[in-house]
Amino acid sequence: MLYQQYPSVLLENAVSEFSKLPGIGRKSALRLVLHLLKQNEEEVELFGNTLIRLKKEIKHCKVCHNIADTDICDICSNTNRDAGIVCVVENIKDVMSIENTQQYKGLYHVLGGIISPMDGIGPADLEIDSLVKRVEKGIVSEIILALSPTMEGDTTNFYIFRKIASFPIKITTIARGISIGDELEYADEVTLGRSIVNRVQFTDSYNKKH
Amino acid sequence: MLYQQYPSVLLENAVSEFSKLPGIGRKSALRLVLHLLKQNEEEVELFGNTLIRLKKEIKHCKVCHNIADTDICDICSNTNRDAGIVCVVENIKDVMSIENTQQYKGLYHVLGGIISPMDGIGPADLEIDSLVKRVEKGIVSEIILALSPTMEGDTTNFYIFRKIASFPIKITTIARGISIGDELEYADEVTLGRSIVNRVQFTDSYNKKH
Repeated sequence: MLYQQYPSVLLENAVSEFSKLPGIGRKSALRLVLHLLKQNEEEVELFGNTLIRLKKEIKHCKVCHNIADTDICDICSNTNRDAGIVCVVENIKDVMSIENTQQYKGLYHVLGGIISPMDGIGPADLEIDSLVKRVEKGIVSEIILALSPTMEGDTTNFYIFRKIASFPIKITTIARGISIGDELEYADEVTLGRSIVNRVQFTDSYNKKH
Repeated sequence: MLYQQYPSVLLENAVSEFSKLPGIGRKSALRLVLHLLKQNEEEVELFGNTLIRLKKEIKHCKVCHNIADTDICDICSNTNRDAGIVCVVENIKDVMSIENTQQYKGLYHVLGGIISPMDGIGPADLEIDSLVKRVEKGIVSEIILALSPTMEGDTTNFYIFRKIASFPIKITTIARGISIGDELEYADEVTLGRSIVNRVQFTDSYNKKH
């Protein structure tokens, strides 16, 4: 291109930074930057400083590795929750999703990823050793494996299972089945098959709850 | 909701800031924030500071009101460009679009919006007086009105026209017609009608150029 595309280096830098974010191309980035340019200086400063503070000051809970503002997160330090049950999840978003269901009263353990040789992520990159140490303490009576039903998730499930199978605890995994509201004819075969094999007793309370 | 949705106030603040941007909801904002959390502290600091610097240090060209790093923008200070032709556009993006065509060698005048009573934008909110002052200096021989073909654009065109019609200059507007590559049968009637009324001489060079 003969002409420079941006009339300002400051503008170009801001567009470059935004377009590093996932799902944001240079056109969207420009739109966002021009929007920010229309705001007050204080508002843009708040935006920038909020991000800088976020990265500088955020902590990871020393127990479950969820993000937190304190050394021990609100969930782990909540004495009303059942410390005997630990739900193992891939990331912070999964904690938020399960919390939003309001169906779970136990604690969590955030692995920080799943085993994925393709992406160069091995067991040592994840919080698996710290999970084993939690189990060793003897307070945990049940581990719920709540990873995605993908090959990587299954591999990670199996790896964790082998590490903790010798402890006198219950090891469970979240139920797989037809999503509520889904049409049976559009469900994939594997899910449908599993949902028949793992069928549950029909009760009125089941229907009321869901 | 019984439970707090975010495990950290810092995280929540960052999500709130991102979701103020146009087209970014709280879910996308969370995805962007979690992506930033995975980056180095230096990278996030660069992101934040780039935005703060952008707003603090960016200038508007004193001649054409385009954004710039200097008092006079690169286009206005480029002596190879024709200072006799001024193309009037709504905003900075329009300058970039026209520059990218590489077909225009004159200067610009960025209004900073168009007259829109619905949004409370009147002529006084736009850089129309400064345009009249540019014309008064006697260097400009042609004003190209390049606003969007909307009611607001037409209103603004007409308002500017009345302000500068008494000066001995050519006042033109960008050609309206069927977009190159468009099917005739899908063109709207007004555009098709205008493109017939404003038909141009067919030449070989026209075809070669486009």
